Amino acid sequence: MKRLLHIATTTAVALVCAVSLATAEDLREQALEVFRPLPSTIPAVKDNRITTEKIELGKALFFDPRLSASGVFSCNSCHNLATGGDDNLETSIGHGWQRGPRNAPTVLNAVLNEAQFWDGRAEDLKAQAKGPVQASVEMANTPDQVVATLKSMPLYVAWFEAAFPDEDDPVTFDNMAKAIEAFEATLITPAPFDAYLNGDDAALTDLEKRGLALFMDKGCAACHSGVNVGGHGYYPFGLIEKPGADILPENDRGRFEVTKTVDDSYVFRASPLRNIAVTAPYFHSGRVWDLGVAVAIMGTAQLGEELDDEEVEAIVAFLGSLTGTMPAIAYPVLPPETATTPRPRAELQ
Amino acid sequence: MKRLLHIATTTAVALVCAVSLATAEDLREQALEVFRPLPSTIPAVKDNRITTEKIELGKALFFDPRLSASGVFSCNSCHNLATGGDDNLETSIGHGWQRGPRNAPTVLNAVLNEAQFWDGRAEDLKAQAKGPVQASVEMANTPDQVVATLKSMPLYVAWFEAAFPDEDDPVTFDNMAKAIEAFEATLITPAPFDAYLNGDDAALTDLEKRGLALFMDKGCAACHSGVNVGGHGYYPFGLIEKPGADILPENDRGRFEVTKTVDDSYVFRASPLRNIAVTAPYFHSGRVWDLGVAVAIMGTAQLGEELDDEEVEAIVAFLGSLTGTMPAIAYPVLPPETATTPRPRAELQ
Repeated sequence: MKRLLHIATTTAVALVCAVSLATAEDLREQALEVFRPLPSTIPAVKDNRITTEKIELGKALFFDPRLSASGVFSCNSCHNLATGGDDNLETSIGHGWQRGPRNAPTVLNAVLNEAQFWDGRAEDLKAQAKGPVQASVEMANTPDQVVATLKSMPLYVAWFEAAFPDEDDPVTFDNMAKAIEAFEATLITPAPFDAYLNGDDAALTDLEKRGLALFMDKGCAACHSGVNVGGHGYYPFGLIEKPGADILPENDRGRFEVTKTVDDSYVFRASPLRNIAVTAPYFHSGRVWDLGVAVAIMGTAQLGEELDDEEVEAIVAFLGSLTGTMPAIAYPVLPPETATTPRPRAELQ
Repeated sequence: MKRLLHIATTTAVALVCAVSLATAEDLREQALEVFRPLPSTIPAVKDNRITTEKIELGKALFFDPRLSASGVFSCNSCHNLATGGDDNLETSIGHGWQRGPRNAPTVLNAVLNEAQFWDGRAEDLKAQAKGPVQASVEMANTPDQVVATLKSMPLYVAWFEAAFPDEDDPVTFDNMAKAIEAFEATLITPAPFDAYLNGDDAALTDLEKRGLALFMDKGCAACHSGVNVGGHGYYPFGLIEKPGADILPENDRGRFEVTKTVDDSYVFRASPLRNIAVTAPYFHSGRVWDLGVAVAIMGTAQLGEELDDEEVEAIVAFLGSLTGTMPAIAYPVLPPETATTPRPRAELQ
């Protein structure tokens, strides 16, 4: 029996190798019809010309906890650039130790998503950035307080003037969001999969290539496609078979909250899968910690397909090839407060 | 009247200039008897040889929120290197939105303090680092959980092996603390005052020099001396005149909690004053936001001296010359979690 198993395994491995080697060019061509490699330069964004001054200002704002009412949370608290651009929590903890409603998505490569948030309710990152700053369970601040805070620090005023040189009153809530978007546009993480798409066969292992082939053949790539392997298009979670309420809580109806259309019940944006291996836990509910389990759930829920262990393993290996290299980030030194800086307010509103 | 005032001011300014120019060498010599400039190399620490590997590991640990039970707080949360090495809060907010009992001191140059914490209850930074990780109102974790967390990530294990190459079982709570201490030893911030002590007359303005002279003449330097302009020696807060309970809360008896000696009631370590201008609010209670007000309170409480506005202004100017340059810090990329990494626990114990 053991011997038989061994032969079977060897044959399977040989078969896989033969397949992946024989179809090396085909596989890449097929992949290039579905995916795109990351750009080699900072992506341009709509209505927001990206300059060095804007990026540097945005970086300071991204790391500044004084954008929150309590002075405790910065953008980086939940979108931590040290841990894959998210916080590794089921759902984030915010103002007053309140829980956010959904798992914090990674900020890495988010500039390339077609819309932001799990329900796509923000068109782009400059619209997104204004949300958490004001959300009562996150940073719990107000635009007026944020502007008062920023205007109280002469160094911030000078940085806004440099970033928005043509404006009479550059320290605004909108410009805060634009600067943060400019910084976030630099958070592009080229991965082995990009090297593969760009022509380097050795960038993926045979197992990763088999996972890529499965990812396309099984239908995962129907929703998780494009430059971010997801991040555009909305789909019902449980297209074929609804997962249990432990994974798909009944009280969060997804895009329905945005469109108020019954058809959009439990519809969510297809998650972008870059860096997915380092951004557990998974799904909008953050209820699944194991990537293999998440892949298997997607198989049954979205494709009506029971993936076997070997298929799951290969797909997980492919997803690992989407883990990219972080850009170098010099931790900023922020402007010091002054006598007129509003004081932190930790109380619940 | 206006004219008279003008003449008086001009005369005062001329007098000040004359004094500071005439006694330039005397002032520096007097200062060098009381203060020392920062060292030009990373200070050696007791029982902890500092290596590049240890510093890099310590930096990762310092920024890692997974050292806390909730996964929300890192060392950097309360000792934020972007904002003077503290959190700019009256007292820190920790696990479960609980308030810490005392204002978080800056971690900058803390390696040069003779003891750590406001009551000096930790001998050095490797002893200090273990406190907040376990404090129920701060990171609320346990040594066992921390070690389990670190051991669950192969990259951390490799980093500990590199940092502690002679040890069989290098991933320990003690070694975590040693690595953090090694990183913190690099957080040295040379300031204009150091350049002045090192012989550069132009490094301080005349007002700052007048403030320095006053700081020594009035007696401030009796407690705030040495390389960190404080940070060693214990003194009763309210030596001459006890401040009100708004500034000196009655239920916090300071070093008494450590020594249980009545003489140590309301005794605190003399605060190190490097970077004091960027680390409001002030005192162990964090109740005073304005540095000038803090200086005036010190005058009456510790020296029995009503400092006038001009004296306060000069001393505040001198204290500003203690604001140093931060070392460049590349924001770390932390090891990704694995299936065996303990999950975040946000509940109150």
